[in-house]
Amino acid sequence: MTSTDSGNPGRPQPKGPRGGPRPRLPLYQRIAALIEGQIRSGILRVGDKAPSVRALRRQQRVSVSTVLQAYFWLENRGCLKARPRSGFYVSAPRAGRSPEPGVGPPDLDPKRVGVGEILRDAVRAAADPGKIPFGAACPSPDLLPNRRLNLILRRIARRDPQHSARYELPPGNQALRRQIARRALEMGCTLEPDEIIITCGAMQALNLALLAVSRPGDVVALESPTYFGILQAVEALGMRVVEIPAHPRTGIDLDLLERAMKRRRISACIAMTNCHNPLGYVLSEERKQALVDLTARHEVPLIEDDIYGDLAYGQDRPRTAKSLDRKGQVLLCSSFSKVLAPGFRLGWIHAGRFTPQVERLMFLTTIAAPSMPQIVVSEFLESGGYDRHLKRLRTVFANQVEAVSQAVSRHFPDRTRITRPGGGYLLWVELPKEVDALELYRRASAANIGILPGAIFSAGGQFRHHLRLSCGHPMSEASDRALRALGRLARGMLAHPS
Amino acid sequence: MTSTDSGNPGRPQPKGPRGGPRPRLPLYQRIAALIEGQIRSGILRVGDKAPSVRALRRQQRVSVSTVLQAYFWLENRGCLKARPRSGFYVSAPRAGRSPEPGVGPPDLDPKRVGVGEILRDAVRAAADPGKIPFGAACPSPDLLPNRRLNLILRRIARRDPQHSARYELPPGNQALRRQIARRALEMGCTLEPDEIIITCGAMQALNLALLAVSRPGDVVALESPTYFGILQAVEALGMRVVEIPAHPRTGIDLDLLERAMKRRRISACIAMTNCHNPLGYVLSEERKQALVDLTARHEVPLIEDDIYGDLAYGQDRPRTAKSLDRKGQVLLCSSFSKVLAPGFRLGWIHAGRFTPQVERLMFLTTIAAPSMPQIVVSEFLESGGYDRHLKRLRTVFANQVEAVSQAVSRHFPDRTRITRPGGGYLLWVELPKEVDALELYRRASAANIGILPGAIFSAGGQFRHHLRLSCGHPMSEASDRALRALGRLARGMLAHPS
Repeated sequence: MTSTDSGNPGRPQPKGPRGGPRPRLPLYQRIAALIEGQIRSGILRVGDKAPSVRALRRQQRVSVSTVLQAYFWLENRGCLKARPRSGFYVSAPRAGRSPEPGVGPPDLDPKRVGVGEILRDAVRAAADPGKIPFGAACPSPDLLPNRRLNLILRRIARRDPQHSARYELPPGNQALRRQIARRALEMGCTLEPDEIIITCGAMQALNLALLAVSRPGDVVALESPTYFGILQAVEALGMRVVEIPAHPRTGIDLDLLERAMKRRRISACIAMTNCHNPLGYVLSEERKQALVDLTARHEVPLIEDDIYGDLAYGQDRPRTAKSLDRKGQVLLCSSFSKVLAPGFRLGWIHAGRFTPQVERLMFLTTIAAPSMPQIVVSEFLESGGYDRHLKRLRTVFANQVEAVSQAVSRHFPDRTRITRPGGGYLLWVELPKEVDALELYRRASAANIGILPGAIFSAGGQFRHHLRLSCGHPMSEASDRALRALGRLARGMLAHPS
Repeated sequence: MTSTDSGNPGRPQPKGPRGGPRPRLPLYQRIAALIEGQIRSGILRVGDKAPSVRALRRQQRVSVSTVLQAYFWLENRGCLKARPRSGFYVSAPRAGRSPEPGVGPPDLDPKRVGVGEILRDAVRAAADPGKIPFGAACPSPDLLPNRRLNLILRRIARRDPQHSARYELPPGNQALRRQIARRALEMGCTLEPDEIIITCGAMQALNLALLAVSRPGDVVALESPTYFGILQAVEALGMRVVEIPAHPRTGIDLDLLERAMKRRRISACIAMTNCHNPLGYVLSEERKQALVDLTARHEVPLIEDDIYGDLAYGQDRPRTAKSLDRKGQVLLCSSFSKVLAPGFRLGWIHAGRFTPQVERLMFLTTIAAPSMPQIVVSEFLESGGYDRHLKRLRTVFANQVEAVSQAVSRHFPDRTRITRPGGGYLLWVELPKEVDALELYRRASAANIGILPGAIFSAGGQFRHHLRLSCGHPMSEASDRALRALGRLARGMLAHPS
């Protein structure tokens, strides 16, 4: 059996929302599925050389980079192994993996968010260094370029001792904005440095975006499940949410989103188009375009959270919805927290036609982002090596996600489902319906295992038997033991333990 | 003529709001007025030794520190001069100074704030290094302990290279919170470290406080004039303001505040009790107590902005309203931006009974404050020398304020009025009514002189002939020339130039 189950008739199929036909995969995943099919059907066996990149490119009429992306994806999944100067070879099949989770039921009634109680507890627990770290969505400190950042930091302290005496007033440090604009090309965007606004992390960028386009009492459309922080932030600003079900591969249900927009005024739509938290999907370009077109047609600003975009597996950095925006209606938010330095609290936003409002709000909420992190990161980006760092990080995270997926598939109860992220380091686990994931979270906490309960990823009381596992840290014996213990705890909560 | 004019019958008297009797001065200022009176009446002449501290203490039944505070105040004003191991001596009288500004008319109707246009322009201009720096309320970088901060920074970069890989989740770095709690004793407060929440500057602290106690649509009471940032922040959160006139010495008019609270529900009152921006006053303890009592009686949370409190002139750091709070209804906000490192964006809040809400909001708006500044400042405070630094800073600022006051009195038109700050480095200047200060601000900008127009310190269109001058930088020939040029510009706008 192969390491993924796409097209495997013996497994429950991921379905489109409301049981409809399965939505279209990104191009490279379709190429990958083709090769997987050949492996499954025995055309390709372990040790065989996979079709050459050039042959496949010609045959499928796709670009070289798409083929490479597909092969890289398959390598991360353990189906192929690259041999230097030779090509890709079919590698030994790994243990079977649990199928993918389903989609939650649609519920288009606006909600007030009500999971604050769990949140404080969960956030504190997630950050507790005494716990096995499957909780907080934070990369292992060992994976970040701390040594180089500190070299730059010390250089600046010597060269420019008055750095801390200066405000970097909005829009923020100019050199950094230039570097961000330069890198934005990889997201498919042409951004003017003067229109990029530096913030204290992406979370602040999202808050400013919300304040700029929505008023208290307004209704904001969100994917479901979605990052708990943004759900709560919407509530803290006195707004309500409509939760649009999101499919673990194809993302937000566009039909339902349109229905919601027709039914009432939606003041903004927030979406993670790349490496979704918690589902892990990377939207295909077609779906990104459809999302941009739909929101533009209804004149609803689209707040795009691209915080994990640099961590998408594969050769090419996926583009953003922002890059397909022709009306200045997409507000793109990102940060360096997941790839360089969470402690720097350094994010940014390009707010399209809302740029003046966001710049003003940045001043009014915080005056400015801290100076030193802006200078350090701008010099880090300028001095090169960021791409090499990202490439390494992507491979490491893909492997960590794979390792955790394997362990979950081994240790968790039958009927457990698990996502196939297209990037990042987060896994979304759907347990059998009998398992109360909140209770499991509590028991795991007591056993010093950090996880997050699915319930906090929804305002409407969904995902009661779901978990999010962060795979930001390398697997160790302790974390394997922890996953085994989690599986045991979950099985203990079944009516008829398997 | 002495350097201040309190009690001088030849000058317009500062009056209580609406022409009532002049409000009571803080104790040390009454002692100072006594000595000034003796100088004016010729009892004390230039070169004479002022009454000894012990004698005055006995005679007036006040504490030694109150007498010293009075003498220090008189020294800053140029009336006395200390001789080491000898005492205080009457020094040569300086040029006469312009009288103090009056109080704006009361207007208790809630307002939407509408000066955003000027704001962006003014903030950018205020931060423009090409301008003579009377604009931004930012201390000269040369006055800040950059060398020591950088030493600590470099030490941490070596000792703890993973600092930037860690979040300091709310409430924030524990060592820093302990240091703040330790220092809070000087404000008269006993604060638990666990109840102090670290923020990105005081501005964020104020925003979180507002979000915690008020809802959009609510009405917030503010001093008038008040810091433009907070006016605009209230608006950005969808709230309205009631502006309560503030007297340049005795602060917010408590009768009018009470009337406003009786007339409609006020959701919060924001006040700067020490070194007000822009008026410079330090409220007496009696008035702080009255403010706390009044807001408590009406169950209105009091948001206290103490960002300049450490810069009050005199021996003793004035206490905060917070220290007089028995109900947990005062939310104390402060920062290290005005005394250590504006670029660190490091503030804090003790939110009384609203602590859990503020801690949650901190997470939802920014996740956490940046790590490095928290570690650096905590080690700076721990290693001592902060008091020495503050003492030096206070003296420098008092002298700079004095120098600018003298220059304004010399160069500006007759009928100009000017505040006598009790601390900090801000001056509030009331020009003759014919002078359009907004136009003056524009002309000054064109002449590369940074100032701020009074209009942005009010929501209701007041202070149209007022300016704020920041005296954070040492006087130079260029800045003296700039003040002369400002005076000339102002005189040019009079119907009958003096």
